Amino acid sequence: MTVSQERLARALNPRTVAVVGDKGASGYMWLRNQSTFRGKVYSVQVDPREIPGIEALGITNYTSLTEIPDEIDWVICAVPRQVAPRVMADAAAKGVAGVGMFTSGFAETGEELGRQLQDAIVEIARNAGIALVGPNCMGLYNPGAGVRFSAEQVTGEGGRIGVISQSGTHAINTSLLTAANGMLLSTAVSIGNAVILDVPDYLEYFGNDPRTEIIAMYVEGVKEGRRFREVLARVAQRKPVVIWKGGQTDAGARATMSHTASLASAMHIWQALARQVNAIMVDNLDELVDVLQLLLRAKPGGGRRAALMAQTGGQSVSITDAFAKAGLEIPQLTEDSYQQLAGFFNIIGGSYQNPFDMAGTVNQNPDLLDRIFGIIDADPNIDAIVMEMSALFAARRWVANPDLFEDLLNRLQAHQARSSKPFATILHPGHLEAEIAGLRPKIQARGIAVLPSFDRGARAMARVSAYHRARAAG
Amino acid sequence: MTVSQERLARALNPRTVAVVGDKGASGYMWLRNQSTFRGKVYSVQVDPREIPGIEALGITNYTSLTEIPDEIDWVICAVPRQVAPRVMADAAAKGVAGVGMFTSGFAETGEELGRQLQDAIVEIARNAGIALVGPNCMGLYNPGAGVRFSAEQVTGEGGRIGVISQSGTHAINTSLLTAANGMLLSTAVSIGNAVILDVPDYLEYFGNDPRTEIIAMYVEGVKEGRRFREVLARVAQRKPVVIWKGGQTDAGARATMSHTASLASAMHIWQALARQVNAIMVDNLDELVDVLQLLLRAKPGGGRRAALMAQTGGQSVSITDAFAKAGLEIPQLTEDSYQQLAGFFNIIGGSYQNPFDMAGTVNQNPDLLDRIFGIIDADPNIDAIVMEMSALFAARRWVANPDLFEDLLNRLQAHQARSSKPFATILHPGHLEAEIAGLRPKIQARGIAVLPSFDRGARAMARVSAYHRARAAG
Repeated sequence: MTVSQERLARALNPRTVAVVGDKGASGYMWLRNQSTFRGKVYSVQVDPREIPGIEALGITNYTSLTEIPDEIDWVICAVPRQVAPRVMADAAAKGVAGVGMFTSGFAETGEELGRQLQDAIVEIARNAGIALVGPNCMGLYNPGAGVRFSAEQVTGEGGRIGVISQSGTHAINTSLLTAANGMLLSTAVSIGNAVILDVPDYLEYFGNDPRTEIIAMYVEGVKEGRRFREVLARVAQRKPVVIWKGGQTDAGARATMSHTASLASAMHIWQALARQVNAIMVDNLDELVDVLQLLLRAKPGGGRRAALMAQTGGQSVSITDAFAKAGLEIPQLTEDSYQQLAGFFNIIGGSYQNPFDMAGTVNQNPDLLDRIFGIIDADPNIDAIVMEMSALFAARRWVANPDLFEDLLNRLQAHQARSSKPFATILHPGHLEAEIAGLRPKIQARGIAVLPSFDRGARAMARVSAYHRARAAG
Repeated sequence: MTVSQERLARALNPRTVAVVGDKGASGYMWLRNQSTFRGKVYSVQVDPREIPGIEALGITNYTSLTEIPDEIDWVICAVPRQVAPRVMADAAAKGVAGVGMFTSGFAETGEELGRQLQDAIVEIARNAGIALVGPNCMGLYNPGAGVRFSAEQVTGEGGRIGVISQSGTHAINTSLLTAANGMLLSTAVSIGNAVILDVPDYLEYFGNDPRTEIIAMYVEGVKEGRRFREVLARVAQRKPVVIWKGGQTDAGARATMSHTASLASAMHIWQALARQVNAIMVDNLDELVDVLQLLLRAKPGGGRRAALMAQTGGQSVSITDAFAKAGLEIPQLTEDSYQQLAGFFNIIGGSYQNPFDMAGTVNQNPDLLDRIFGIIDADPNIDAIVMEMSALFAARRWVANPDLFEDLLNRLQAHQARSSKPFATILHPGHLEAEIAGLRPKIQARGIAVLPSFDRGARAMARVSAYHRARAAG
């Protein structure tokens, strides 16, 4: 019996949750994590020493899944590995929709016992059609439902990004770093050894999920290459798919063996696949978050020709090097634009050839900024606009004078709303890490992408513009 | 007359400073910046409206350099460009050692008047042998002497890094970001249009300066290529030279024209030169700071074979990909090491194949960490050791429990002191930006390099190990 998409959808959007095997030594982490769950949470624990602690949380404990007098959609299983087959058998008897198997020590250990136990749970899950997520994983994060695998994950409002991760750490960090950048997830699944459900199943799910507009995945290897390719090609036509491949190098691929027992295929195969289906490849978490920002916040546009606005001369050289290296073009504007600019751009030490050296204009003359935006936006030589927010100390001034900053944000937001061209800002933390950490969310709250360096901004913009270009080419 | 190195040394290590043309509209920025100067500061200002504000700072004002009843080593010139030749003539008459010409509007404008004025100041400086720094620059930062071009620059203690920068912004940001990373400069010169003194002169100076152990430069172009090559080759044999080249791309090179009127030569020429003389090329400020950290803090070593310690499985794959991509090797340990590790490394979910998946050991069992360090350090297959500090929430625990963190730092410091192999830590800010910003300086205060991501750590280590390898090969 295969797992139906209906059953998977029921498992990932549960109305009832049972946590099996949580214990005081881990601070009842799994039960506590579900304190935000909108439905009913049950506990299953047979150890009499653990039960009082569970009941002190206000949660009813049972000694078996089958005893719970309610339908169970989602089981979080945190028992020792030897007990896992027994829990799966109970789950099958109970008719649960899905199980997130946190328990590890299976095939990823390379041990015979681990393999045998894995085979046992796989057989039960397969026979019962249970949506088994994992084992050796963090399971499900569904912010809208309030199901979490980390107490730091935000809940309440669901977002637009679906995440599939073959690593628990990367699943947690992706959810927390996107949230820190003002982006919410629809659902994240940490898929671990992926013995029953694999990447294609989750991809299919997110492809069908109406809340999910963008799909991001960390993947080390997939078992059914042909099926993966087929589903990916189909889903990627409808929604952008961003792939962070783990085990890109021979040494990294060896490391995946100890991690999830994945047989990582050669990177050039992944790159060729990504080109064919127009998926966006990234190399690490930072690049993933950067690309997500542009996909979510910048207008779509496949043009390579960028207007670059930096705040000083040295920065105008650096931003240009970074964007040119990433394969973007920094063209001259039209004669008409230059004539208009010559009429009012009289900043001492500044320059408007493209790159623009704004010589601190952002702070000193925001009206000038509006006029420059208007000219670049109308210029047919320009496809995208990138603006450095602060080269030196502007962040200090904005902290000291929030009205000045709000005024600037109003102008940036108005520009982005008016313009049909992709727009992004760059704000390097530099030595003002704390100040920038406070300002960045305010820019992002206006729906404006903020990249932390010229290089990262350039690489992300090159990738996202290539995506839109290929998409437009059909 | 050329400028002697003696005269340049006197100019860059002044006992007296005169600021010409500072004014209230800029908050008397230049005079205020010198509030930390250890010697005597004078002002020259002819505008009677500006003089009361200057005197209110407790500074004696004169209406000409020649009237100051003291020898003047260093002049900071902030007058309008038309007045610059007059100030230079006075400086020549006064016999000053050097002038830092903040004034801009010269050849970099592309205007005829700018070129004429530049020719005029060059002629005077050349005839008088004045060490003219600039024009169109921020001039001199000498923390030991207390001379600054930004009020945020630290003074008092001089450091070990000499900085040459063709960009004022990059000079300021380099000084502030190195300081934020616990690294002090001996001297930084912002060299602007470099009309009298050019990169080879400053390079020669830093080569001879006993306080300077490492030289870092941001350079867009040099006028005397042959001389530059000759001096660089000579200096780079004695001290590591890190070169951040601006205008690496055609578009970036065009941008340098508006910035410092530099004719940037093709990047492949710079790369070939760097290989010949064993200089370290970097692409941006972040990479510069990363390389400086390793040069200053990690033991020298040219081996490519790294032991990688990550805190979780997903991170062990990611760190391995990053280091393998940068050209480093992640080899198996010796059989002897594995036998020792098998005797005590029993962390559930962990792995010690290299990469190490420490599964959070750093917090839970620091003694284990010491033993692992001992084994890797003794392993002949391993040349360098890199350790991820925190994959998820350790930073929170350390903030809540500083003793735990201090204990860990003691162990890391002891390891680094004991080991002859390069050692670096990785601490990604992730969603805990504020916490990490507080912890990072404490690690750095122990003399331990902290890189902010696997990728940046890998690239910096690859560059610095290549430097040491070439150096060892002679």
